[in-house]
Amino acid sequence: MITHAQIQAALNSQTKPPGSLGKLEDLGARLAYIQQSLQPQASKKRIILFAASHGISAENVSPYPAEVTAQMVLNFIQGGAAINVLCRQHQIDLHVADVGVHFHPLVSPPATDHFHSHPVRSGTRNFAHEPAMTDQEAYAALATGRAFARQAQQDGIHLTGLGEMGIGNTSSAAALSAALLNLPVAQLTGRGTGADPSMLEHKRVVLARALELHRPLLTSPLAKLCCLGGFELAAMTGFILECAQLRLPVVLDGFIVTTSALLATQMQPEVSSILFYSHRSQEQGHSILLEHLQAQPLLDLQLRLGEGTGVALAMPLLESAARLLSEMATFTTAGVSAKK
Amino acid sequence: MITHAQIQAALNSQTKPPGSLGKLEDLGARLAYIQQSLQPQASKKRIILFAASHGISAENVSPYPAEVTAQMVLNFIQGGAAINVLCRQHQIDLHVADVGVHFHPLVSPPATDHFHSHPVRSGTRNFAHEPAMTDQEAYAALATGRAFARQAQQDGIHLTGLGEMGIGNTSSAAALSAALLNLPVAQLTGRGTGADPSMLEHKRVVLARALELHRPLLTSPLAKLCCLGGFELAAMTGFILECAQLRLPVVLDGFIVTTSALLATQMQPEVSSILFYSHRSQEQGHSILLEHLQAQPLLDLQLRLGEGTGVALAMPLLESAARLLSEMATFTTAGVSAKK
Repeated sequence: MITHAQIQAALNSQTKPPGSLGKLEDLGARLAYIQQSLQPQASKKRIILFAASHGISAENVSPYPAEVTAQMVLNFIQGGAAINVLCRQHQIDLHVADVGVHFHPLVSPPATDHFHSHPVRSGTRNFAHEPAMTDQEAYAALATGRAFARQAQQDGIHLTGLGEMGIGNTSSAAALSAALLNLPVAQLTGRGTGADPSMLEHKRVVLARALELHRPLLTSPLAKLCCLGGFELAAMTGFILECAQLRLPVVLDGFIVTTSALLATQMQPEVSSILFYSHRSQEQGHSILLEHLQAQPLLDLQLRLGEGTGVALAMPLLESAARLLSEMATFTTAGVSAKK
Repeated sequence: MITHAQIQAALNSQTKPPGSLGKLEDLGARLAYIQQSLQPQASKKRIILFAASHGISAENVSPYPAEVTAQMVLNFIQGGAAINVLCRQHQIDLHVADVGVHFHPLVSPPATDHFHSHPVRSGTRNFAHEPAMTDQEAYAALATGRAFARQAQQDGIHLTGLGEMGIGNTSSAAALSAALLNLPVAQLTGRGTGADPSMLEHKRVVLARALELHRPLLTSPLAKLCCLGGFELAAMTGFILECAQLRLPVVLDGFIVTTSALLATQMQPEVSSILFYSHRSQEQGHSILLEHLQAQPLLDLQLRLGEGTGVALAMPLLESAARLLSEMATFTTAGVSAKK
C-alpha cells in the first residue's frame, strides 16, 4: 500500500523547491494514490463522447434545430469537429457512442471502430409533458456507460474523459441538477449554445413548469434521471460509477458532464475520489455545480461547446502531473544542493 | 493583407456556436493576424532557457546556495529537470543558454547542440554595492538574446517561449520591475524559491537599500537594467525585441520573464502584439506586472518554479487555438445546420 506520506516524500525529493509545481503536485499525488504507484501513468488517454437526442428540444429551448445532434455525430465520425482536432493533437483515443440519437430514416452513420451504436431509443420523450425515459431505459443507458468503462480498463487506458452532444441537453441538465440540488431551476438555466434573452426566459419557464409537473415523482436520484434526464447523461453516470469501482480516473467536461457526475456522487459518494475537473464552463449552472462539488477546475477559458473539448485541453496537464512525478531527477541523483 | 474581419468570419463559419471556444478563439485570431494566415501554425515550438548567476545572491536573499544555478544547468543538460519532462511530453525544442553562469573551475558543461555557452561574465556584480553590469555587458546580453530570435526564425519555429534559471533572480526582477514601474520594491518582493518570513523581510531591506543606492542612475530603462538586472533578464529582453521585429510570437513564463517583457515594452511599446502570457505565478510581484501589462494569462496553477515550466504547459493551448482555426470543418462542408 502506497501512502500519502510516501507520495509527498517522493515529490519533495525532486529537483525543485518543495511545492513549486503548485496544483500539478496535488494532481500527481492524486493519480499516484489512485494508481497506487510512485510512477503514475497518464499517457494512454481516451475520451468517450456520448450523444443522444432530446424530446425537450421540441419546446424551442435551443437556437439550433434538433437534427444538429445527428449531423454533428457524422461530423465527429468524419473528424471535422473541435473535439477531433484536439484529440488528434494530443493522441487522445476518441470514441463516439450513440446512446439515443434520432437519425433521419435515410441516413445511417458509417460503421467505424471508433463509433458505437447503442441507442436506447431514438431520443428521450419530451419531459415538458411526460417522463423522459422509463426505468428500463435508464438501466440500459447506465449499463452501456458501465461497459465503456470496463472496455477502457481492458484496453489499458490510464486516463478517461467524458464528452457529450445533444441539442437540448443543457435543458435536461438544468432540470436534473435543479432536482438533485433542490435549487430553483432558473439559477441553473443558461444560454446553452447561444439562446438570446427571450429564448432564455422561455427556457426557464418551460423548465420550471416541467419540474412542477414531475415534482411528486422526484423521490430518488434515479427517479430524477428518469423524469428529466437524457440518455447520454445516464450513460455518463454509469461510466463514472464503473470507473470508480475500477479505480480509473475520469476527467469531466462542462455543465452536462458535471451533472452526470453530480448524479453519480449522489448515488455513491465515494466516486469523487476518481473525478478530475477540466475547466469552468461559461454556462452559468456549471459554477454552481462546481461549488457544490467543492471542485477547482484546471482551466478557465470561457468555453461553452461541450463535446469533451475542455477534457481534451486539460488531459495534457494531468499527463504532465504524472510525468513530472515519474520522470524528474532527485536532488541526490542530479547532484543539486538542497536548501541551506 | 488578412484583416481582423476575415479572421472573425473564418471562426464563425466553423461547426460550433459562435464564440463557444472562448479564449481559444481570441488566441487563434491573434496568431492568425501575427502570421497573416487563416491557417495559423503553432506545431513547431521552442523554449530558450537563459541562465545566469547573480552577485546579489551573496546577500542571503535565497534559501538555495548560489552554486545551484550551475548545478541546475547540468540537470537541464542531463534531462532531469521539470522543464525537460514537459518539453519531452510536448515535443518542444528546448535550448539552454548560459549567458553568465558561474561554474566551478573544475566543472565545464558538456557540449551539446541544445546547450549554448555565451557567458557575458561569470555572473553579475552584487547590485547591493555596485551596478550589476556595465553598458557594454548589457549590450552583449541583449545581442545574444536577439541572435536566438533570429535563429528560431531561420529554423522555421512557429512559437517561441522563454524560461530562466538563476538563484537570486527574483531579487533582481523585483528591484528592476520596481524601478521600471516606480513602485515600492516591497510590493514586488516575494518568497522566490521559498524564503521564510525572516529571509523575506531581509530581502526587502536589501532591495530597498539597493534601490536607494542606485536611485540617481535610474534614468532610463537601459540604465535600470544595468544597475539592477541579470544577464538572463537582458538576454530575454533582447530576444523579445527581436521577435517583435520578426513577427514571431513569444510565450512568457512567470515573474522573471515578465520583468524582461515589461522592460522590452518600455523600450518599444509595440512588442506587446507578439506576447502571450502562459500563467499567473504564485510569486506575488507577478500579478502586479500582469495587471500593469493588462495581461490575462492562460493558466493559474500556483506554479513558482520558473525554467519556462508555465510556458511548456501553455504552449499546447496556443497550438490548440491555431489547429482549431486551421483544421475545423465549416457548417457548409460538414452539412451541419446553422442557427434557426
